[in-house]
Amino acid sequence: MTPEQRKNFDRLMSPRHIAFVGGADAIVAIGEARRRGFTGEFWPVNPKRAELAGIPCYASIDDLPQAPDAVFLAVPVTAALETIAKLSAMGAGGVVCYSAGFKESGADGAEAENRLKTAVGDMALIGPNCYGVINYLDNTALWPFAHGGDSPGYGAAIITQSGMFSSDITMSQRSLPLTHMISAGNQAVMGLEDFIEVLCENPAVRAIGVHIEGLQDIPKFERAALKALRANTPIVALKTGSSAIGSALTISHTGSLSGANELYQALFDRLAVISVTSPSQFLETLKYLCVVGAPAGNKVAGFTCSGGGATMLADHAETIGLDFPACDEDQARALTKLLPAIATVSNPLDYTTPIWGQSELTEPVFATAIAGNDVNSALLLQDYPAPGLDESKFCYQNDAKAFARAAASSGVPAAICATLPENMDAETRALLIENGVAPMQGIHETLNAIAAAAQWRQRAASILENPTSALAPRTISENMVLMDEAKGKSLLADAGLAVPAGQCVSGANAADVAALIGFPVVIKMMGPKLAHKTEAGAVALGLNNVEAVAQALTAMRAAVLTYDKTAVTDCFLVEAMAKPPVAELIVGIRRDPLFGLAMTLGSGGVLVELIGDATTLLLPCGQQDIRAAIASLKGAKLMQGFRGLPVVDFDALASHLADLAAFVQTSDTPIVELEINPLFVYEDKALAVDVLIHTEAGT
Amino acid sequence: MTPEQRKNFDRLMSPRHIAFVGGADAIVAIGEARRRGFTGEFWPVNPKRAELAGIPCYASIDDLPQAPDAVFLAVPVTAALETIAKLSAMGAGGVVCYSAGFKESGADGAEAENRLKTAVGDMALIGPNCYGVINYLDNTALWPFAHGGDSPGYGAAIITQSGMFSSDITMSQRSLPLTHMISAGNQAVMGLEDFIEVLCENPAVRAIGVHIEGLQDIPKFERAALKALRANTPIVALKTGSSAIGSALTISHTGSLSGANELYQALFDRLAVISVTSPSQFLETLKYLCVVGAPAGNKVAGFTCSGGGATMLADHAETIGLDFPACDEDQARALTKLLPAIATVSNPLDYTTPIWGQSELTEPVFATAIAGNDVNSALLLQDYPAPGLDESKFCYQNDAKAFARAAASSGVPAAICATLPENMDAETRALLIENGVAPMQGIHETLNAIAAAAQWRQRAASILENPTSALAPRTISENMVLMDEAKGKSLLADAGLAVPAGQCVSGANAADVAALIGFPVVIKMMGPKLAHKTEAGAVALGLNNVEAVAQALTAMRAAVLTYDKTAVTDCFLVEAMAKPPVAELIVGIRRDPLFGLAMTLGSGGVLVELIGDATTLLLPCGQQDIRAAIASLKGAKLMQGFRGLPVVDFDALASHLADLAAFVQTSDTPIVELEINPLFVYEDKALAVDVLIHTEAGT
Repeated sequence: MTPEQRKNFDRLMSPRHIAFVGGADAIVAIGEARRRGFTGEFWPVNPKRAELAGIPCYASIDDLPQAPDAVFLAVPVTAALETIAKLSAMGAGGVVCYSAGFKESGADGAEAENRLKTAVGDMALIGPNCYGVINYLDNTALWPFAHGGDSPGYGAAIITQSGMFSSDITMSQRSLPLTHMISAGNQAVMGLEDFIEVLCENPAVRAIGVHIEGLQDIPKFERAALKALRANTPIVALKTGSSAIGSALTISHTGSLSGANELYQALFDRLAVISVTSPSQFLETLKYLCVVGAPAGNKVAGFTCSGGGATMLADHAETIGLDFPACDEDQARALTKLLPAIATVSNPLDYTTPIWGQSELTEPVFATAIAGNDVNSALLLQDYPAPGLDESKFCYQNDAKAFARAAASSGVPAAICATLPENMDAETRALLIENGVAPMQGIHETLNAIAAAAQWRQRAASILENPTSALAPRTISENMVLMDEAKGKSLLADAGLAVPAGQCVSGANAADVAALIGFPVVIKMMGPKLAHKTEAGAVALGLNNVEAVAQALTAMRAAVLTYDKTAVTDCFLVEAMAKPPVAELIVGIRRDPLFGLAMTLGSGGVLVELIGDATTLLLPCGQQDIRAAIASLKGAKLMQGFRGLPVVDFDALASHLADLAAFVQTSDTPIVELEINPLFVYEDKALAVDVLIHTEAGT
Repeated sequence: MTPEQRKNFDRLMSPRHIAFVGGADAIVAIGEARRRGFTGEFWPVNPKRAELAGIPCYASIDDLPQAPDAVFLAVPVTAALETIAKLSAMGAGGVVCYSAGFKESGADGAEAENRLKTAVGDMALIGPNCYGVINYLDNTALWPFAHGGDSPGYGAAIITQSGMFSSDITMSQRSLPLTHMISAGNQAVMGLEDFIEVLCENPAVRAIGVHIEGLQDIPKFERAALKALRANTPIVALKTGSSAIGSALTISHTGSLSGANELYQALFDRLAVISVTSPSQFLETLKYLCVVGAPAGNKVAGFTCSGGGATMLADHAETIGLDFPACDEDQARALTKLLPAIATVSNPLDYTTPIWGQSELTEPVFATAIAGNDVNSALLLQDYPAPGLDESKFCYQNDAKAFARAAASSGVPAAICATLPENMDAETRALLIENGVAPMQGIHETLNAIAAAAQWRQRAASILENPTSALAPRTISENMVLMDEAKGKSLLADAGLAVPAGQCVSGANAADVAALIGFPVVIKMMGPKLAHKTEAGAVALGLNNVEAVAQALTAMRAAVLTYDKTAVTDCFLVEAMAKPPVAELIVGIRRDPLFGLAMTLGSGGVLVELIGDATTLLLPCGQQDIRAAIASLKGAKLMQGFRGLPVVDFDALASHLADLAAFVQTSDTPIVELEINPLFVYEDKALAVDVLIHTEAGT
């Protein structure tokens, strides 16, 4: 974003005047700006009408009193392009281009979108093919559809790649504090990375929600997300399209473990972006973060007025690793004095109906349980009665206010949560927000939000403390060349990774070299058509003497001849046979044109095939990230003293892999894909037993 | 339930007169009966008051004009017991005993509850320590708290073990059709099994929802659930308490794979009970089943008016195995003609805004996509605008009605679903129900409900076609005896399961017997203190000759001496060493005092320890159930021609295991636990390489 464009974007977001260019859609947009309470000037523009929504029209943008700060543009493509060029020339601030018929509609549209990019000049532009923007802080809207939503002066800025989803969110009944809603459309000029970068500068924006179908510029997203992280603004992402896109980027065997979805998850992990999969979870997580912020840890003091509710809290918390720590003895004694005889001291605590609604009795219970128990947040479960059935609502509210006071005095984030999302009315939600308590809807959503917020805080601190270099994707030639295994291993050796002692020789010399290396040996035929050596019969293991070598060569030639007679060579890699390892890993590094280098670590043997036990990291990354990735594998147990096996030094292993990653990043050899399968892992070393490397052709 | 009790239960559920015995709580209950529209007689009973809720009081139940059909009882324990005895004597129908202070409150309470069971006689009784019952069909309520909810003349009967959760459900804003709400409390007299048994006879009850903290009588639950199944009434269970109870029942190594939670899941699978984990999912699944029933399969025709929504549907459907099949060519051609040019034919289908709200254009699209495509159900995604912002609601409703007509003409179950649960107002929900469409709230909840309903239908048919004998738990002595491995194996051989050729001998004869059996052999020391033979050093594998046997015996004696000098014996099991298998399984059978016999099948080797790859079946069960359980293991792939390994005959394997199960069920030996670890699995046979059997002591 140029400084000029940035200035214009600010004008678009907080305009003094808005030009509404179009017909029926422009009329709706005028209505929505009014609904939002826009107090600036409305300038309808339509050559054929005298007025729009009761306001006299300008016949053309040429007639406007001055260059508008903001323009809502809803005319067909050709007219839209002309208008944008004129607006740019006259110095308008920015445009919401509602018009469709651009890139989303085929080749002609893509061409039109290119012309739009030229025409826009220094202006800010949202869209085309978008709903536009609502600014809840300054009460402006450029929006073609009825909208709801509100702001207490702070909240979440939400950016979506679906106008309808934006609309659904503004219609939600959750009292989610909002600052901005941007429907980004085709992102021809400004994309969600730009919006994040600007919005995170605003202290009223306490969290940013992004609905992502696909990102266009990953390094830019990384810069924006890190800027938000430094501003202490969490980002919550709802990434959709996992089912379709996932398969599209799959390239090879490692690729099947690391599709686009894994790359996005790796990106989110790298940047402490909170990833959610359901729309409700998206909103509840944002609400928690906006109203009370992120807890310092995952210990929660929980309260219910029902045994059933306490059980439900405990059940789901256990499955997501959220902790309701037991009370210590002093605290239990103190609580016993404060509670009715029928209550049992526990966490979550069912404080029981005899004291329900009597804040002078419940507040000390809340305060004692929260204060004495080294917890990071507090949670009260309350389902409010439905409107018309709410004779007892005041009792709930008494306890809610008592809880709010108790939590405030201990300084931990506090939430009240309804079992069913709808069992908390709008008035109560507003009351809770006023009292500094997050009004949460749905047990699972609430617990998930607390866990995600706590994890965000820890991860964010760790990222800021251990900065890594930026992602650096580049375009990749479509043509790839397979490097033979011997060369590949020599490359690995250059990278500092151990490979079996070995040598490439002709068949005539194989036995002599084998004797020199020392038996047992492995022999593999090398050749450009032998990517799948086991299938081709081009591998012989455990050869114990000269005769075995000779027999193996004969058999191998015959097998490969059957497999593909043009694949046969007289080049053999003779290697020392490796000792059985503690465990096997699969290590893949591949270059993605969008994400750059990605390293996939998987458990070897059957685990990766049976349960897909693999994890992906984007490079460059720190050695500690690699260590954490190894430890996160289910197969990691095998390397931690499993059934009397030795314990593997994860630091040393991570260090070897970090060296490999650094080598691939900086190597002159243009490696596109590298797969070590298996990597034999020993107590304090690792040995690449087989490797497959593809490089870009023509280099 | 005796016929007398059954008659009395019917009186309690549909009373002509209700006695309200108590003070403040009775007043609330009178109000709730009025709120529900109860048209029978109200008989307040209170010795100290002239009236309750404006109705003159009887001083004692002795003064009542006749024995009441129903009694709401809210007096302290002692008075409650006296009153119940009197009511029974005078021939009252049934009692909702709201009073607490029984089993839930310690030893005195448990004693009181025993007296209650005697006092109740032939009466029906719900509770004590419960909220009671609401009958939405006959408009009666015995309920101590404000309640909501409604019925169109059919719906779900819900039974909970938490009064508060019952209350939360009646307050929900989902238009879930309800027939009954029962808060079961302590279940001293009637339990949820009884309620299921009665309710499933009522054709207005289209589904039964049960919130279960723990069942008291599993065989009774099984009988009730099978009765419901025969009545074509699905049961949806929300089982809570998994975190606490799970560990309590854990007994041994196999036990750790098969805690109470696994036993409940096995029970639910066995009976086609739909198991859910969240309160929202509980209600949405019931709603779908009540309004439209269960689809015949998992193929869905999906519609949206937004690309973003279509993606969200597809994403979650893929993760749960729900299928949106692609259109065939004819259908695609037909749809292309009906859709605007900007639309792309797909499933889910974004029919795009140009035809939005124009039912004459959308109905043919819906009809064509549903009819031509061999689907089992139809789904339209619509988020309705919020009240006050709903100028365009008529457009949504136009499409909704068009969709309802299209689905009705094809005869498949149809649902309309909002992305966010709250984005469907009460009026719209009622309209949809009138039009035979399920008004669903939340994308994930809706797709999960459809998938569960379809699966229920298939599973229900399979259970009814292949009936198995009933579960038969019995009490178990707390004292267990470990059977030595040699005896255990001889027992397995009796059961028809292959074990390695072997013999128990003294050390002096071991070498001779080994030679007779044939090398290589395995030798294990047998003894009552050698349950953990590997730890004790009491196992020697792969002994190839007489000398190796001698050395092994010496080493073994020394090792066991160090391990526990009182464990050493001169009894050795000499066995033929088994060939390497295709795969290893762990097979456990244990006797649970509540559930009876349960068989746990797990993948052997590292899989079970790393990923808990195990599944549990309750016995008796059919061979086909065992086969399905084997196939459901992640490790099953290893037995299906994995990497060139042979294919295991699952039918033969299941048959061996079915024989084993039958043997344990009928054996004179009182087996409490049996663990075969490992079971070596070959192409067409299985070999029990090690076995640990515990029997009841004193038999």
